[in-house]
Amino acid sequence: MNISNSIYSGVVGWSRLQEIILEYKKSGIYILVDENTRELCLPLLKAKCTGLEEALVIEMHSNESNKTIASVEKIWQQLVVGNAVRNSLMICLGGGLVTDVGGFAAATFKRGINFIHIPTTLLAMVDASIGGKTGVNLNSIKNQIGVFALPKAVFIFEEFLKTLPTRQKLSGYAEMLKHAMIHSEELFEKFIILNSHEKVCNEVNILESASVKLDIVNSDFTETGLRKSLNFGHTVGHAIESYSQKYDSDPLLHGEAIAIGLICESFISMRMFGFDKNDLKRLANLVSWHFPHYRFKPKPGDELLALMCHDKKNASSSQLNFSLIRKIGEPVFDKFPGEKLILESLHFYINLEVGFFV
Amino acid sequence: MNISNSIYSGVVGWSRLQEIILEYKKSGIYILVDENTRELCLPLLKAKCTGLEEALVIEMHSNESNKTIASVEKIWQQLVVGNAVRNSLMICLGGGLVTDVGGFAAATFKRGINFIHIPTTLLAMVDASIGGKTGVNLNSIKNQIGVFALPKAVFIFEEFLKTLPTRQKLSGYAEMLKHAMIHSEELFEKFIILNSHEKVCNEVNILESASVKLDIVNSDFTETGLRKSLNFGHTVGHAIESYSQKYDSDPLLHGEAIAIGLICESFISMRMFGFDKNDLKRLANLVSWHFPHYRFKPKPGDELLALMCHDKKNASSSQLNFSLIRKIGEPVFDKFPGEKLILESLHFYINLEVGFFV
Repeated sequence: MNISNSIYSGVVGWSRLQEIILEYKKSGIYILVDENTRELCLPLLKAKCTGLEEALVIEMHSNESNKTIASVEKIWQQLVVGNAVRNSLMICLGGGLVTDVGGFAAATFKRGINFIHIPTTLLAMVDASIGGKTGVNLNSIKNQIGVFALPKAVFIFEEFLKTLPTRQKLSGYAEMLKHAMIHSEELFEKFIILNSHEKVCNEVNILESASVKLDIVNSDFTETGLRKSLNFGHTVGHAIESYSQKYDSDPLLHGEAIAIGLICESFISMRMFGFDKNDLKRLANLVSWHFPHYRFKPKPGDELLALMCHDKKNASSSQLNFSLIRKIGEPVFDKFPGEKLILESLHFYINLEVGFFV
Repeated sequence: MNISNSIYSGVVGWSRLQEIILEYKKSGIYILVDENTRELCLPLLKAKCTGLEEALVIEMHSNESNKTIASVEKIWQQLVVGNAVRNSLMICLGGGLVTDVGGFAAATFKRGINFIHIPTTLLAMVDASIGGKTGVNLNSIKNQIGVFALPKAVFIFEEFLKTLPTRQKLSGYAEMLKHAMIHSEELFEKFIILNSHEKVCNEVNILESASVKLDIVNSDFTETGLRKSLNFGHTVGHAIESYSQKYDSDPLLHGEAIAIGLICESFISMRMFGFDKNDLKRLANLVSWHFPHYRFKPKPGDELLALMCHDKKNASSSQLNFSLIRKIGEPVFDKFPGEKLILESLHFYINLEVGFFV
């Protein structure tokens, strides 16, 4: 299966990957891994493909605090030591951290060497590895440094998901849900009917979800318009993610926070654009089914608002820019709900605690 | 005067620059300078344009040893402190070091903010600022890290040349001579007839020379073919530049080394492709007229060859890849003259010491 010439999967994917490896073997192949993918994913890759015997394996740490220019510099140094040339190939084998940092290192080494992504988490398969955003954090500000650079190809192999913990899968599932909601009733319906992340997370559905993002990205590569719709759920979601990182010993994963963000921002969409109340109900029930209800400390509103404002470079709350949804399949962007409505949406989620929304 | 929508000059240039400054004033303007251009060029820029009162001036050191990722990081940090946003503008005011480093910093900040170049050396006007190569050195390997990124516009103002020492002007003159040789008999003829770098280095001729490079770059942005012809004179020239840096307390400037490289590589071109002996003579006389003859230590051949091989990533001497010239206006590339012919060409230059070639 091959979507738009650049995402490959399944048997065709392994065969295309094998071709690429043999094509670049002579000019040098460099595999970027983290300590987890070195142990859990690299053996499978090497078992499936020939021609990687002489590839240089470069390891980085799988921690957001290592998403820095210093890590990139270490990768560059190893490319120099390994005599990488302009026509060498980097294979980024890992989650979003590896594909973001590796993509940036490759795109800036000798003004750009070839790279491909083999995402090993569901989140990276449907999101991070698609769309050419690469980069690192600066002073803990996320993705402050980077370039837009497209991998030569992205390979989605469900084999790698077998080693992934359920929570990690659910984290990717939330982004798939977002893609479905901004794409079409048909795709959203599938989530409702299947009502199981295990059933949703097969190769066909993952590819379909990745291609929703790819299509949007292709129509607006540098995010001047439509691409912003991919931020649906993320203004509130990011704030909740930061909030949880501050207060919880075992904080929410990205997608777990985004799932809550989807509910809040669908609520805002209902108030601002008449997003269907019944769809909000279907979404809330779906999220409640898959994710445990998150319990904030008392009165989290002001702190969450402050986090949103900080995330948008110290905007005032009236300047907070949202990507919302008029109805399933009809995203809108550059919308400003304002403080009151944002707080109401948080209370709406908090009050869901008692159970399903009927 | 406006060549291909992106190089501006003269009155039209100042007026276009003023427009751009007013367009970006609101979203933030950042002027990158070095200690020299801060003193000698920034006052003129500020006197000529309004709207720069609140621009943040960022200073870097004008030394090749500062062409590192650490310098880029300092620029990023100042952009953060100065609240630069995606739609901010960086003005790179300086020589090739400032345009290379500044272009890279801008192209990688928030995945790319706008930047323009105002080159202040002749070399940067006709070469470094044109063509979108940006980057820094890594472990002293030149331009190992970087991206291709085009400035929004390049402004060539001869006012800035007034403060430039003659040797610096001659350094740029050598690159102009190279452009003329790979472009056309007509352009080369102009150098012969004028026979004075002062007469050659006016705004019209500088623009014409910059546009030779721009046209080539436009037809082969990522240097897979024709763009290589811009390397004419540079395989030998770079080796001589390194040689001089090693042995001389006041080493050759880039263009001074390239002028010698042009002679040697024209000699090789004569032997390999029948490049006209009379043109070689005209070139050698022109170079002898403008540049003092450079005196190597005895038997420099082996060391220069070793430097060439190192420059091309430890290639063997038979693998040394040259961009040459079949006749004036007809460049060729991916040519391999081999050790013997390279050494002969060096001896040819060394023997020119006695005076003009008649």
